[in-house]
Amino acid sequence: MYREICFATGNAHKYAEAEAVAREYGITLKQCPGVKREIQSDSLEEVAKHAALTAYMELGQPVLVEDAGLFVKALNGFPGPYSSYVYKTIGWKGLLKLMEGVEDRSACFKSVAVLVYEPFLITGVGEVCGAVATEARGVKGFGFDPVFIPEGYSVTFAEMDVVEKNMVSHRARALRSVFKTLREYLERLE
Amino acid sequence: MYREICFATGNAHKYAEAEAVAREYGITLKQCPGVKREIQSDSLEEVAKHAALTAYMELGQPVLVEDAGLFVKALNGFPGPYSSYVYKTIGWKGLLKLMEGVEDRSACFKSVAVLVYEPFLITGVGEVCGAVATEARGVKGFGFDPVFIPEGYSVTFAEMDVVEKNMVSHRARALRSVFKTLREYLERLE
Repeated sequence: MYREICFATGNAHKYAEAEAVAREYGITLKQCPGVKREIQSDSLEEVAKHAALTAYMELGQPVLVEDAGLFVKALNGFPGPYSSYVYKTIGWKGLLKLMEGVEDRSACFKSVAVLVYEPFLITGVGEVCGAVATEARGVKGFGFDPVFIPEGYSVTFAEMDVVEKNMVSHRARALRSVFKTLREYLERLE
Repeated sequence: MYREICFATGNAHKYAEAEAVAREYGITLKQCPGVKREIQSDSLEEVAKHAALTAYMELGQPVLVEDAGLFVKALNGFPGPYSSYVYKTIGWKGLLKLMEGVEDRSACFKSVAVLVYEPFLITGVGEVCGAVATEARGVKGFGFDPVFIPEGYSVTFAEMDVVEKNMVSHRARALRSVFKTLREYLERLE
């Protein structure tokens, strides 16, 4: 029913999470590494939209891009849209160091997913708030997952498997919003 | 009701034609020169889609791009997607020269219009067939208009005013297809 969608990412963890959400909607996601171009911008949405459109021009088939960031309140939103770069350089160790002695540990993960699926160009956002842990726990997931505890939970994202993480994560929420919109549009334009 | 749409073109004639068609649908078109990037491709559709997506990334507001070409049967489709370049270099004089002594003067103007209007990415095509005239006539329009006579007419495009040309032209047909689709989508997703 749906055309196959290329998920532009080189991150296998991200792909596994997105693929599981796509399956809920009967959608087939294929991992397409090497086509995601990221511009520098303080807006996750701008980064994701630009990456989706350039990947679409390159691939010429339905394309999905997802961009996420961890926004720590006490750090004025740092690392935000640059989470991936910050993770690769100072890592969660650097983040824990920055948070030493900080009382307010609240933080939110935000995600923007953009789908180019002619005749549609659909954007979805997702968010989950919680706290920066005082120490890293767990080995699943990726990025800052070992130091993020979602609200209402006592475990970090890195202690959850894909199914558990997808029940609450920013990424799953953004993707569900996109796939739900796609399904609805296709049904109503049938 | 509709958001304003940027028509990415530096061509005032093209804008005037498109603007008149947009008005039929209650749509406001603004001329946005300087944002149209054209790739080299044998496919009008690929050129138009690429130009629309890059212009959209630059402008961040609804964008329309239209690309057209004259396909002359006896010349294997020349000048086709490169009509604008061919016009700027050898002009309609060059085309008439190439057609000297050629009996089959049939030719078609084709147009592809691409609209990025979130959450939609809409493509429309239009075509009008006719003949390459034996001499240039008229001063209206632009490009190869003085040497193209649409089927069922005895005058060239350059002898028609905007209203007359829009009744039959490839461009007006492609644009009407796009605006009609937009209207229908918006109505059905309301």
